[in-house]
Amino acid sequence: MAPSLEVLDKVAQSLPVNPLKGAKSAVASGIKFESTETHDRVLKVFRAFIADLCQQFNGGHPGSAMGMAAIGVSLYKYVMRYSPQNCEYFNRDRFVLSNGHACLWQYLFMHLIGVKSMTLEQLKSYHSSRTDSICPGHPEIENEGVEVTTGPLGQGVANAVGLAIATKNLAATYNKDGIEVVNNMTWCMIGDACLQEGVGLEAVSLAGHWRLNNLCVIYDNNNITCDGTADVANTEDMNAKMRATGWNVIDVANGDSDIEAITDALIAARQSTEKPTFINIRTTIGFGSDKAGSAKTHGAALGVDDIASIKTSFGLNPEEFYQIPQDVYDFFKDVGPRGKEYEAEWNASVSKYVQQNPELGTEFQLRVAGRMPDDWTKCIPTSEQLPKEPVATRKSAGLITNPLGERMRNFLIGTADLTPSCNVAFNQKVDFQSPNLKTACGLNGDYSGRYIHYGIREHAMCAISNGLAAFKKGTFLPVTSSFFMFYLYAAPAVRMAALQGLQQIHIATHDSIGTGEDGPTHQPIALPALYRAMPNLLYIRPCDSEEVAGAFLAAIQATETPTIISLSRQNLTQFPQNSSREGVASGAYVFAESEVFDVTLIGVGSEMGYTMETRDLLAREYGIKARVQSRQYKQSVLKPRSGKPTVVIEAYAANGWERYADASFSMRRFGKSLPSKAAYEYFGYVPAKMAPKIRDLVEEVRREGIEVLRGDFRDLNGPLGVGFEH
Amino acid sequence: MAPSLEVLDKVAQSLPVNPLKGAKSAVASGIKFESTETHDRVLKVFRAFIADLCQQFNGGHPGSAMGMAAIGVSLYKYVMRYSPQNCEYFNRDRFVLSNGHACLWQYLFMHLIGVKSMTLEQLKSYHSSRTDSICPGHPEIENEGVEVTTGPLGQGVANAVGLAIATKNLAATYNKDGIEVVNNMTWCMIGDACLQEGVGLEAVSLAGHWRLNNLCVIYDNNNITCDGTADVANTEDMNAKMRATGWNVIDVANGDSDIEAITDALIAARQSTEKPTFINIRTTIGFGSDKAGSAKTHGAALGVDDIASIKTSFGLNPEEFYQIPQDVYDFFKDVGPRGKEYEAEWNASVSKYVQQNPELGTEFQLRVAGRMPDDWTKCIPTSEQLPKEPVATRKSAGLITNPLGERMRNFLIGTADLTPSCNVAFNQKVDFQSPNLKTACGLNGDYSGRYIHYGIREHAMCAISNGLAAFKKGTFLPVTSSFFMFYLYAAPAVRMAALQGLQQIHIATHDSIGTGEDGPTHQPIALPALYRAMPNLLYIRPCDSEEVAGAFLAAIQATETPTIISLSRQNLTQFPQNSSREGVASGAYVFAESEVFDVTLIGVGSEMGYTMETRDLLAREYGIKARVQSRQYKQSVLKPRSGKPTVVIEAYAANGWERYADASFSMRRFGKSLPSKAAYEYFGYVPAKMAPKIRDLVEEVRREGIEVLRGDFRDLNGPLGVGFEH
Repeated sequence: MAPSLEVLDKVAQSLPVNPLKGAKSAVASGIKFESTETHDRVLKVFRAFIADLCQQFNGGHPGSAMGMAAIGVSLYKYVMRYSPQNCEYFNRDRFVLSNGHACLWQYLFMHLIGVKSMTLEQLKSYHSSRTDSICPGHPEIENEGVEVTTGPLGQGVANAVGLAIATKNLAATYNKDGIEVVNNMTWCMIGDACLQEGVGLEAVSLAGHWRLNNLCVIYDNNNITCDGTADVANTEDMNAKMRATGWNVIDVANGDSDIEAITDALIAARQSTEKPTFINIRTTIGFGSDKAGSAKTHGAALGVDDIASIKTSFGLNPEEFYQIPQDVYDFFKDVGPRGKEYEAEWNASVSKYVQQNPELGTEFQLRVAGRMPDDWTKCIPTSEQLPKEPVATRKSAGLITNPLGERMRNFLIGTADLTPSCNVAFNQKVDFQSPNLKTACGLNGDYSGRYIHYGIREHAMCAISNGLAAFKKGTFLPVTSSFFMFYLYAAPAVRMAALQGLQQIHIATHDSIGTGEDGPTHQPIALPALYRAMPNLLYIRPCDSEEVAGAFLAAIQATETPTIISLSRQNLTQFPQNSSREGVASGAYVFAESEVFDVTLIGVGSEMGYTMETRDLLAREYGIKARVQSRQYKQSVLKPRSGKPTVVIEAYAANGWERYADASFSMRRFGKSLPSKAAYEYFGYVPAKMAPKIRDLVEEVRREGIEVLRGDFRDLNGPLGVGFEH
Repeated sequence: MAPSLEVLDKVAQSLPVNPLKGAKSAVASGIKFESTETHDRVLKVFRAFIADLCQQFNGGHPGSAMGMAAIGVSLYKYVMRYSPQNCEYFNRDRFVLSNGHACLWQYLFMHLIGVKSMTLEQLKSYHSSRTDSICPGHPEIENEGVEVTTGPLGQGVANAVGLAIATKNLAATYNKDGIEVVNNMTWCMIGDACLQEGVGLEAVSLAGHWRLNNLCVIYDNNNITCDGTADVANTEDMNAKMRATGWNVIDVANGDSDIEAITDALIAARQSTEKPTFINIRTTIGFGSDKAGSAKTHGAALGVDDIASIKTSFGLNPEEFYQIPQDVYDFFKDVGPRGKEYEAEWNASVSKYVQQNPELGTEFQLRVAGRMPDDWTKCIPTSEQLPKEPVATRKSAGLITNPLGERMRNFLIGTADLTPSCNVAFNQKVDFQSPNLKTACGLNGDYSGRYIHYGIREHAMCAISNGLAAFKKGTFLPVTSSFFMFYLYAAPAVRMAALQGLQQIHIATHDSIGTGEDGPTHQPIALPALYRAMPNLLYIRPCDSEEVAGAFLAAIQATETPTIISLSRQNLTQFPQNSSREGVASGAYVFAESEVFDVTLIGVGSEMGYTMETRDLLAREYGIKARVQSRQYKQSVLKPRSGKPTVVIEAYAANGWERYADASFSMRRFGKSLPSKAAYEYFGYVPAKMAPKIRDLVEEVRREGIEVLRGDFRDLNGPLGVGFEH
């Protein structure tokens, strides 16, 4: 299936070498290369070591890690600016391994350059049962030197775009008078998948649009995926596509060993003045193996015999394992001291900067420390300042994002092309845009802008936000916005934020069937079940402006957690006597008390109005006393052990509510294209219809005891006789 | 914000007109155009009518529907082959409105050409409270003449790729001896969003790769999105990008009125011999309005004054509403008869074909009727034929997809680049590929192939499958495969299948923490909560080969429902004495009975082994009798009212299980990179740890009665002291 290495070689030799116009070569830029023999030796040792690591537990991903060895030498030895003794140094170049399965490559380079935690013993824990391993099957942000957790393909390249934006925005905001307190590059390694996955394509498009010249994507083009040659599912002209998308493109013909050519390309990328750079490097997957150039080296150990033959052909001893001779360590020994110099330079710059710009300098240092100004709470309107007349919660949210966006420079607020609908555009907003586009397209904006037009790209929006949040935790608080339904498009990125503990706020408007006329395609039914079940994610569905304020307070205080604030399109009654911002923070609280009561109603978000009306009706018509609870997000509260039934009223799938309630008015099918009020009516959210059903339930419990409800969660709004039922 | 119309005009005039090389013009192809004056009149009436429809309830999407009027005339009057009196005629050209918000455009053309159900009265139900409207806010498949439900952007263009594959595959399989029983085109209208959304980009890439010359994507390029000019988030060279992706590109400079140029381009697309065609048509959103060319015409009614002025400038009476003069109806009056001719021609072809090819002909007619051969059940191995030794359920699934794929020509089986992992490649498989790629890339395959390499594009895979399934329900049964985790990438498309009642089978391997070393990025925790809550979706998680067989039986019989079969990476104990394929179909069944019992355990999928071991341990160590239930998917079964507790053992988020159980061993955080067995151990799925906790629960209930569990769902495997807890 795989083409022979000779064929690959021929392809490689036919490629034009097209470095960036006007760029200085690596040598001209002051880089002193070691000899070709030394490079060769380092590459051999590196590749054999990777093969050994995968063999020990007979698994893992050796192929790309071996194929990318020369790229790694260029990056880690010659090009990247970072400090192995202090991987967190603020102005370091960021590196993202978007093809995360090649993590051994990164782990081994981290070891070689002297990252302390990455011991030989740790390296050998890859694929082991050690629960304290820092070498998991994909890189994880918790571990030293890893900028973002990667693995789900396409995410990393979008994260890299976010990291590059972070640099651009900080630089445009703070760099002054020739002092650059932030000027790092972002390097991102990708395989074929990251240019096939939609999220990667969305992100690449945006990076080109924003002219992110501080971003370099390095394409490990080995033409192999799990199914064989990449051609089996992709025959497009990738370079032409990237050029059309606004990128510099540089080809490297021999990525297996031509460290100088790779380095020239990387150095050229750093010199790019107005575009991101795409370096298309031809490599051989599993270089050295007898299966080199084939998918067989991708996701399985190579086998004992193959590894012995690799070592023999490399001039290494096949009887020895995990060999890293001292000369190979020595090869990397200048990396540490150079890193210390970068740090020292940066510290000096910051000192000088703070001296010359005390106010901005103090703010910058606060950002570096990952902290918000203490007075952010002043941006949240008081209860008195909030509207008392019916208003959509998406508008209430606007009242809060507006002052936050205006005053808090850590807020980068974006939208997936829904500025008119999501109400997150703040006063005096400046768009995040390349200043070059001012003349080209008449766009207003520059890199200091903090309002981001992501286009109709929800997935990239959230994945890019992950990069922003990961630049350094707390330096940015990314806010995204779209219709709630389209956070299903973004779900893989939202999940990655939850997994990594990256704070951000997602303004999800047009929730539930209240969205109305747009119909079932736009009405989320099952989506809340996903987010309510997701670890480390807050899904808050406020019922009025006061609860919206509470939602923002909770979201901003959750510094290690992403939050989705789920908001209505339609106007909602305000409950100034009942709703409570503090209540939101506690997850569930009593909304309308009744000392003696027959039933507890749980109201949520848009459906609180119907809940409160139903409560009134129960009292008036049937003499039944109901207390109402408001519930915002998952939390282990108990069903009241009152011996009285609990009923939840929410226009979503009931799944998950069974823990807190005995019965529900919930959705058992997809929605319908009707005006908001008519949609609620169609699905039975009518107090006059709900109240008698609740009365029946209460009477049943009075008659037969609360035990009658055990094991019998009731769907009170019934099948409706239409659509799909399960 | 929006550029003036003059600027747009200038841009348009500067464009090259580049029809397909060698293509005949519309006139040369036999099309007789009506006069420019007639066209002008039809366009004016059409646009004014759209404005009226949106104004009546002060909402909707007038701008693009008005902007695309001339494109619609070309398509509906001159180019598309279909029959308004029989919208279901099998060989009709398929049309997909990927920018579904422009649905009024389609509804009005359907009315004008004489689709019976689309009455004037129905048209006026757009955005009304009428629950029997066939004019919802986005097109819905249930309604006559709508091929697929669209709205969530990017989906439609991927569906169109699926529809085009369907044609190619049927044609390559059945067309013979010059008789073409299938040869329809697929036309797809898109706006800017469909080329920004990742799923659209993935699909476009595949269409280029597959050289789908029967697909034409028509780009309504009005340069306007909700946030203003599309430039605000997109400045790439779209034509160059599409060319790089393997498409013909044709520009049309004046899409507002140049019906002849549009028609020439469409006719050229039909003549393309080896590539799909992208027609980039410059239009003016809201043409005629005083807000024309601006985002203000996109998602809101234009206002009474504007509409009056539109009508006046169009020479229509501003005092009259919903005017469709007879001459405009007359303009379209040849469409119906022509449609009848197409039908008659096709019927004649099929008759001739069946006569000449009785066997293939019978099969073809079965496919047209949307039916599978009755003997498909023979492809499912009997219980005796299934392995008794431990085996991964992904391998068991392979035992079933293999004969199905080999023998059932309605099965199109695909993978998102996981052929070696998902085991769906069947014997004698032929890849679905362009025969032209045989020479170009040495790929084996042709259009009769039924194994589809989707590349690393899970979302497009499922969205394309929706198109396949929608070609005609039952003609194809698309099967997809990937790791379960990556069905989160595909979720918006899976949801669209559930919403539309499109049958397909998703082979989702590597489920739960059993995936092991790949770590938390690859271990689904919350994802099942989404799919279990989703209306009209079967999520089946079989525990052994027998249940896998049951899963396929259920999935194939669910002709209006997509199914996800969730499978293990790791080997699982087989339970030939307990498991039952019929049991799977019933949703939940008793797996291991115990006439007298103290507790019910619910075991699911990979965790059944741990459940059964725990049962043994409970009996042996504590004298506690447990019955075990197997549960495959959501169904309203009751908690046993036995007065005995029920405990579920599953390595997913517990959300939703509260309906069926009193306590669970479930996941409250993301997973961990460990070998499968070690991962289970780490999270407490160890019989020796679980049994004593169950014993405690049983004793508590014995002591205090079952009431003690009311309102107190227990998370029995505790917080683990690590990670995020909520």
